[in-house]
Amino acid sequence: MKYKTIAISRQFGSGGRTVGKHVAEKLGIPCYDQELIEMIAKESGFSAEYIKSADEQTQKGGLFGGLFADRVYDTPITQDVVWDVQQKIIQELAEKGPCVIVGRCADYVLRDKADCLRVYVHADINKRMDRIVTVYGEREEAPRKRVEDKDKRRKAYYEKYTDQKWGAAENFHIALDSGELGLEACEKILLDLYQG
Amino acid sequence: MKYKTIAISRQFGSGGRTVGKHVAEKLGIPCYDQELIEMIAKESGFSAEYIKSADEQTQKGGLFGGLFADRVYDTPITQDVVWDVQQKIIQELAEKGPCVIVGRCADYVLRDKADCLRVYVHADINKRMDRIVTVYGEREEAPRKRVEDKDKRRKAYYEKYTDQKWGAAENFHIALDSGELGLEACEKILLDLYQG
Repeated sequence: MKYKTIAISRQFGSGGRTVGKHVAEKLGIPCYDQELIEMIAKESGFSAEYIKSADEQTQKGGLFGGLFADRVYDTPITQDVVWDVQQKIIQELAEKGPCVIVGRCADYVLRDKADCLRVYVHADINKRMDRIVTVYGEREEAPRKRVEDKDKRRKAYYEKYTDQKWGAAENFHIALDSGELGLEACEKILLDLYQG
Repeated sequence: MKYKTIAISRQFGSGGRTVGKHVAEKLGIPCYDQELIEMIAKESGFSAEYIKSADEQTQKGGLFGGLFADRVYDTPITQDVVWDVQQKIIQELAEKGPCVIVGRCADYVLRDKADCLRVYVHADINKRMDRIVTVYGEREEAPRKRVEDKDKRRKAYYEKYTDQKWGAAENFHIALDSGELGLEACEKILLDLYQG
């Protein structure tokens, strides 16, 4: 098999996390998502909530001022500390054994590893709005604003740390429109590529 | 079957045209590439050479001044005439029956057709440089410059007429790194999606 790791970046509401989870289950390998956040929290000393919100904190106080914007410890320097810990943990996980890693710029962190399949999952905003309400159970008010805000924040976070354009096809081995193709078709494509 | 048409946009040297040709052969449907250029030439009254070079003519005389930059008939207006004819022919071909269409912004022209699978094929520049020399038989001098020039021109042409970012994953149902995955794997994925 050519690949050991699958790194999935995904638009909010695209179901990319679910795709990663299902692929990992079918392959019998771990999928790191929430677990990754807890590892970074443990290693860095920050709370899991803070780590989780890191991709919403890239422009403190301004346009993207978020949940922790008033906390003393949320500064560009602590954000960079978290980024360093995050990179180290992602690299260690990829070394340890086959796995799927969702989010946290893992595609970028593992860009030089020949055995990492880099994946982007995206979908039309209307399908994502629908998904966050019906599947994630988010509040029904202003789902468009919620998705657009998340898009802006993920983009800002990704571009700050990776120096690459968020959503550019060339950063990925495969980019999938989950809203068009369906989650199952996306999962099948990744399984086939992994099992090659 | 969900799809009737496959529209492939591709980076120069990625092998996207070959992928389209092979997929069409296996499906027993026509692949329009050079044929499309001849149809546009016939309908518009311009030469096939001029049509073929249209994606290199978007900034006449300046940075992208190309083969026809000194011809009286190559103006933004004639370029727009060609674009109108091109759109009409692509739409007619898609109406006529199942087919694969390579290039000419067909993904954009057919963006509202639910039965069109929109595909982008790209690859690392080193792999593309290698391909244009070994497969296309292009001159070996300065292949990097040749690829970079073509990239710039395709981008300028695509962005002028589509108002979309060239190479953005969100414009496509699937984007494939042919250099990483190999042409055969790309072809298999498209066949599976088409035959669904």
